[in-house]
Amino acid sequence: MKDVINIGIIGFGTVGVGAVKLLLENADSIARKVGSRLVIKRVADLDIASPRPVAVDPSLLTTNAYDVLDDPEIDIVVEVIGGVKPADDYIKRALESGKHVVTANKELIAKEGSELLPLASRLKRDLMFEASVGGGIPIIRPLKTCLAGNEILEVKGIVNGTTNYILTQMKDEGISFSEALRQAQERGYAEADPSSDVDGHDAAYKIAILASIAFTSRADVAAVYREGIREISAEDLRYADQLGFAVKLLAIAKRLNEGMSVRVHPAFVPKSHPLAHVNGVYNAIFVRGNAVGEVMFFGRGAGSEAAGSAVVGDIIDIARNINTGATARVSCTCFDKLPMLGMENVSCRNYVRIIAEDKPRVLAAIAAEFANYEVSIQSVLQRMLPDSCAEIVWLTHEAPEPSMKAALDAIRRLPVVKHIGSRIRVED
Amino acid sequence: MKDVINIGIIGFGTVGVGAVKLLLENADSIARKVGSRLVIKRVADLDIASPRPVAVDPSLLTTNAYDVLDDPEIDIVVEVIGGVKPADDYIKRALESGKHVVTANKELIAKEGSELLPLASRLKRDLMFEASVGGGIPIIRPLKTCLAGNEILEVKGIVNGTTNYILTQMKDEGISFSEALRQAQERGYAEADPSSDVDGHDAAYKIAILASIAFTSRADVAAVYREGIREISAEDLRYADQLGFAVKLLAIAKRLNEGMSVRVHPAFVPKSHPLAHVNGVYNAIFVRGNAVGEVMFFGRGAGSEAAGSAVVGDIIDIARNINTGATARVSCTCFDKLPMLGMENVSCRNYVRIIAEDKPRVLAAIAAEFANYEVSIQSVLQRMLPDSCAEIVWLTHEAPEPSMKAALDAIRRLPVVKHIGSRIRVED
Repeated sequence: MKDVINIGIIGFGTVGVGAVKLLLENADSIARKVGSRLVIKRVADLDIASPRPVAVDPSLLTTNAYDVLDDPEIDIVVEVIGGVKPADDYIKRALESGKHVVTANKELIAKEGSELLPLASRLKRDLMFEASVGGGIPIIRPLKTCLAGNEILEVKGIVNGTTNYILTQMKDEGISFSEALRQAQERGYAEADPSSDVDGHDAAYKIAILASIAFTSRADVAAVYREGIREISAEDLRYADQLGFAVKLLAIAKRLNEGMSVRVHPAFVPKSHPLAHVNGVYNAIFVRGNAVGEVMFFGRGAGSEAAGSAVVGDIIDIARNINTGATARVSCTCFDKLPMLGMENVSCRNYVRIIAEDKPRVLAAIAAEFANYEVSIQSVLQRMLPDSCAEIVWLTHEAPEPSMKAALDAIRRLPVVKHIGSRIRVED
Repeated sequence: MKDVINIGIIGFGTVGVGAVKLLLENADSIARKVGSRLVIKRVADLDIASPRPVAVDPSLLTTNAYDVLDDPEIDIVVEVIGGVKPADDYIKRALESGKHVVTANKELIAKEGSELLPLASRLKRDLMFEASVGGGIPIIRPLKTCLAGNEILEVKGIVNGTTNYILTQMKDEGISFSEALRQAQERGYAEADPSSDVDGHDAAYKIAILASIAFTSRADVAAVYREGIREISAEDLRYADQLGFAVKLLAIAKRLNEGMSVRVHPAFVPKSHPLAHVNGVYNAIFVRGNAVGEVMFFGRGAGSEAAGSAVVGDIIDIARNINTGATARVSCTCFDKLPMLGMENVSCRNYVRIIAEDKPRVLAAIAAEFANYEVSIQSVLQRMLPDSCAEIVWLTHEAPEPSMKAALDAIRRLPVVKHIGSRIRVED
């Protein structure tokens, strides 16, 4: 058992500050749990001048990441700069010089995990990334250990707090996407360039990571179907509520006979489902296993201290491995090569909102096109709009994606149809 | 890395069957994750004649637990008979003969954990008990690892599926406790003698276990305040709904300056809280840490396969420890000796339903007694009952338990008061 385990941190932004704060504030209790003191030996960031909400001995600060990577006394490197470059080089260098690594970097693990994780295994080093999904919510480790006896059939969740905040505001305040985005930006819940969140990139990285662990097969993030929330309107949220649903940006991974279906898109979630009640910046991840049935993990999906909690949990786990000579105790488990299935394998109910001319037989004409492609209808609502238009809202029964696509293409071509306001899949 | 790790199972009832089923059905995927095949070497039960929903080679079955305990080839013993005796002797014997132990036995861990867990630590053996709380829901291991960087401030949850099922039925069907209990018994969700569930013993064991881990200090289960759900009426559930609450049997552990407050009692839970939406046999455990904020774990709290999932998760964790020479990697963490605080330290809002004579000034008389003991009132509802009686429902502001008790004693003595129908604490 080592007296001291030295930590080096690369990135002194939101997550880095959260981890440092926790390591300092809870140092005594952590030391008792680990059997060694965890000491912050070095903190690297390009900006070491700006004040941070935690006090660190200035002599620990450096602008050179290699002061961390090349320090032979550092046992565990924490990479919390984000992005692929130069994070991947730093992590490789750390592993190759015998260090263990904790990262919160979802983009890197999603894109380069297939290289980095086997490298760590070969070198008998730990590479942990609990903070990459769900902020402080335990999900990676429960999947890898507590639920490891199960065949996991499905993982789905609300894994992006920004979009969930925007959708919640749109519903509660009856405001548009652009207004809700503006408010989220003002309050610091959305970036100036919101694309990573609102277009579903962030969620795609996260669900690729979860799918890889759940199905023991690497999910190729480039093959994850992705649709964001820019097209969702306040009307859609109102109709959803009326029909008994909440609208959520869901990240979904399902194990099917032929492979895995991994996708990110807005979805109607029945109010009877626990995910429908996850609001604001909260995240929740729902897992279905062949033995455990349904379990859900809920909490703050972002924020300095929540992400710091996950990073420090990983550090503690690695420190225990160091102290028992058991590093790389749980390695990469991507044993299989399951195909990534396209959307043509998806079959679901659908909500469709159509703006059409308010003329006789419009409803019949649209219904006929649905019928032509064997999409059967569960319910229809129609209301008048100004300018002799009608808004017609359809809830279909379960239909294969190709049928839906063909039906919508045909409906779009109908002369009486002005446009399809929205089409949102129902996730039952 | 061992080719084979041998498992011996004591208890071939609900949980034992679930674990055996999973070990057999998912054997290949488990072997890949562990690096060794997990082989069921022996299964002991007093009844080996009755058919089980899983096929086991009859030569593995024995009525003698010592055929498991004394088999030198068995690495991991699974104790799933429940109860204190003889389970504690079996577990001691297993540990002392060098075996690791997995148990689902909440009563035993709550009552004898203070002896068994240090014994396992001293012998460098693993003693794991994830299935003892929340069935298949990962909670023990997340507290011990993922959230270990936090000071845990609070753990509370719905940890007994039987009572949650009964309360849900009472609400949904508007039926009495005794009718809902009868239905639960018919459907196999409640025992013939329901005391362990409905009087809160089961929940008390579980919250004592969670408190011990969360606060790194052994919670004495005998000092857990305990109140069951027998006195809850359909009216209480109706008023709760009207006032914006759900009624749940909560197990609550809070870290206060002076020590820990650990208790089990029915509670009004605001509908805005995620625990309010946990219905039927589902369990959910809510954790608040000083860094992670609020996280919640949700799922099936009981059942053969869900509990089997937790047992097999523990087996996999131990097998990985065996293969890396890291057994007892995470030992007992009860470092402190925090006092168990009595109910006099609790302060909360309260719902009180009083049956009184329908006379002038009754309401004023009761209100005066609340005021005498400095219990201030948030809202009052009054309705007529037959026989010139009135039912008066009070929601108090937060009040210390001793003030509430004194006020209720004084109100009970008022000549116009027939009886206090119920008093339920609000858990905000």
